[in-house]
Amino acid sequence: MSTNASSLSPWVESNRQRLLDELFELIRIPSVSTLPEHKADVLRAAEFTASKLKAAGLENVEIIPTEGHPLVYADWLHADGKPTVLCYGHYDVQPPDPLDLWISPPFEPELRNGNIYARGAVDDKGQFYMHVKAIEGLMALHGKLPVNVKFLIEGEEEIGGKSISKYVPANREKLQADVALVSDTALYAEGLPTLCIGLRGLVYLEITAQGAMRDLHSGLYGGAAPNAVFGLIELLAKTKNSEGQIQIPGIYDDVAEPDAAELQSWESLPFSEAAMLRDEVGSTRLTGEPGRSVLERVWSRPTLEVHGIAGGFTGAGAKTVIPATATAKVSLRLVPNQNPEKVVEAVRSFVATHAPAGIVCSVNVLSDGPGLLVNPNHPAIAVAAQAFEDMMGKPTVFTRSGGSIPIVGEFHEYLGIPTILMGLGLPDDGLHSPNEKFKLENYYLGIETVAHFLEKYGA
Amino acid sequence: MSTNASSLSPWVESNRQRLLDELFELIRIPSVSTLPEHKADVLRAAEFTASKLKAAGLENVEIIPTEGHPLVYADWLHADGKPTVLCYGHYDVQPPDPLDLWISPPFEPELRNGNIYARGAVDDKGQFYMHVKAIEGLMALHGKLPVNVKFLIEGEEEIGGKSISKYVPANREKLQADVALVSDTALYAEGLPTLCIGLRGLVYLEITAQGAMRDLHSGLYGGAAPNAVFGLIELLAKTKNSEGQIQIPGIYDDVAEPDAAELQSWESLPFSEAAMLRDEVGSTRLTGEPGRSVLERVWSRPTLEVHGIAGGFTGAGAKTVIPATATAKVSLRLVPNQNPEKVVEAVRSFVATHAPAGIVCSVNVLSDGPGLLVNPNHPAIAVAAQAFEDMMGKPTVFTRSGGSIPIVGEFHEYLGIPTILMGLGLPDDGLHSPNEKFKLENYYLGIETVAHFLEKYGA
Repeated sequence: MSTNASSLSPWVESNRQRLLDELFELIRIPSVSTLPEHKADVLRAAEFTASKLKAAGLENVEIIPTEGHPLVYADWLHADGKPTVLCYGHYDVQPPDPLDLWISPPFEPELRNGNIYARGAVDDKGQFYMHVKAIEGLMALHGKLPVNVKFLIEGEEEIGGKSISKYVPANREKLQADVALVSDTALYAEGLPTLCIGLRGLVYLEITAQGAMRDLHSGLYGGAAPNAVFGLIELLAKTKNSEGQIQIPGIYDDVAEPDAAELQSWESLPFSEAAMLRDEVGSTRLTGEPGRSVLERVWSRPTLEVHGIAGGFTGAGAKTVIPATATAKVSLRLVPNQNPEKVVEAVRSFVATHAPAGIVCSVNVLSDGPGLLVNPNHPAIAVAAQAFEDMMGKPTVFTRSGGSIPIVGEFHEYLGIPTILMGLGLPDDGLHSPNEKFKLENYYLGIETVAHFLEKYGA
Repeated sequence: MSTNASSLSPWVESNRQRLLDELFELIRIPSVSTLPEHKADVLRAAEFTASKLKAAGLENVEIIPTEGHPLVYADWLHADGKPTVLCYGHYDVQPPDPLDLWISPPFEPELRNGNIYARGAVDDKGQFYMHVKAIEGLMALHGKLPVNVKFLIEGEEEIGGKSISKYVPANREKLQADVALVSDTALYAEGLPTLCIGLRGLVYLEITAQGAMRDLHSGLYGGAAPNAVFGLIELLAKTKNSEGQIQIPGIYDDVAEPDAAELQSWESLPFSEAAMLRDEVGSTRLTGEPGRSVLERVWSRPTLEVHGIAGGFTGAGAKTVIPATATAKVSLRLVPNQNPEKVVEAVRSFVATHAPAGIVCSVNVLSDGPGLLVNPNHPAIAVAAQAFEDMMGKPTVFTRSGGSIPIVGEFHEYLGIPTILMGLGLPDDGLHSPNEKFKLENYYLGIETVAHFLEKYGA
């Protein structure tokens, strides 16, 4: 909740409805990057983004074709002697399924209880659009910007960001900046200004099992023929013990533990395990490594998840088949100091060692990126923390996120710049889930906070 | 391959093309009983069956509505003083998926290499239709039948046969017969007359796991929230050890071992584990309980298979979701003396005991039926064995099948009659698989063999 006004407050106030209508228009484009049938929609979202960057007053607007979905670039570079901020976001979204659990349709945004409900509302359309509108507001008020600005918006964040990963190292000079600004995370709690300084990495794999040369009748062959689904189950069950500890040798070897000060700061954050269980998860209990706090488990510990298994019969009714093939979607979240390639090799070795009798297993890497940590004492981070405090009336807390934003690692590696993760989401926003939401007032607050940060940073 | 002619040989010879055309017409009806969208097709297959029974000269033809798919009944009861044979078959078929593995479309029968390739070619359209055509031939030749005959053809065999299971006990008098005749099994080997005297039972279950109240982002919650797909994997992996032995307590308690004579007869059957592995299964090795022969493992040992898991994300690309729910299709094949209800209770108890932390599991029974064994010395079985030998020129062997034909147990229980399992399939016919086939000459041989049996049985 905004407690202090920025210089942009009157402008936001007098443009509230239009700022919302535009976001709704963007959200209505079902830009699901992982589904080939939505390719044209993803392109439409890129075109929409480009047109709004131009309308905001940015220059050199480009829709950059890639092997996948396009990148959108724009800049404004007339603040001589001032620092340059690289604004990043993504206009693609996760698939909306399971559709039957949505209260309102995923691509028809609806205002309820002060929230915008829609796929992509908070991840990341609503959040990167705050940057676009902050620029528009500053340009409308002053006819110029307090800093130099570059925008790079991608359409493959939800599928591993391959194109931007190629583009950044190949365009270091064009993208050179002092700091990157990303709004794709959440406030730690409602009303608490938060800068996220740590992200987990992600290795996303498909593990495939092949048993017989074709599906077999489970009566005629059950007892003698290998079952690819069961074989994959046997293999995957061995990847973790009953307490959630990963059993793949070497996985924990390089894990960097948070230092004592950071761990202590987490303990002072408002956190209720009971509330998380009740309001966000809703299972009978939370799970995970014993002897680690929940925040450690989701922020600074590697994890392994199975997202689904394809293979065999899953339709209505009964089919008595011994499936010949099965594929599991498996990911590992990585923490700072873990090397993604090394993790992939550890998984490959584990799969080779533990493939059940009669089952041939293989590993296909869909994406990989490391975890990372930003120095909270960097000058731009300090200005952002103060800007947040100015707007929200409370000291900014530094947290991590268990999620992965691979581009942050790439900005660090190829551009040598830190990233300010200034997210305005809330912990219960339901990213990647049915009924994803974005608190309406946080959208407006975000526009003002981004503008206020740019003004302070340029001062 | 037919080596001896029956009285029906000239009639079959002069009607070869028509007998094939009619079967093709039946096969083209995609009567997939488990898929609701095929309900009208299943009814069309029932109507086709009824019309052909009438055309063959049978009387009292009825399409009997049920809560599911209809039964088809017909009879001819004018052979005074002669025994009565109850012919059973099923006009429904398994789903054809995976479609991309079919060389020719599943519901467009194609003759290749002397085989009819199509879903249902051998299981069971091609085989029950042999009965219909044997009757037609005998009526055409003699104007009457050598025995009394009743037909009961169902449309739910592939989904558990619920309706016929209700109908048989409620219509004991109408269905009373001396023996049942079923052609839904295979010759042990090409050219080897075979009567199957044992079948495994089947318990088909859905096991459901519930973790969180909704799908969650694996970055934000991975490490603290239970994953329903992984929980189900953990549970299912415990149901068998790495050698395929079922770990559910009590499962093996009531298993009846085959007697020494039967085991010895199996050892004299032509069997090559290497050929089965190479030609039928095609995996790197066969699997199953150590210390048991392959025939024991598929004929006289209980097994557990997972047919598929629904839940989570299995589309193209990557989705980083912690699935809230997952359901596995699981079946157990049962052998004589195992009680299906007791097996279900053992599974329920196992699931309750082993549900992983944070996961709520439940068991839903889709169908259950016991295994059974027929006495090979019963007079009708002996006549059938001789009829088979007459036609094929070799002594008939007695085998079992690892598959399940629940109706055979119900004929035993409610009508007090044994069943002759006179199947003309071959071991590599690919039941329930892509490219299911039926050897063309076995179709004609089956028509003659059924007719020859009826004549001998009535003599």
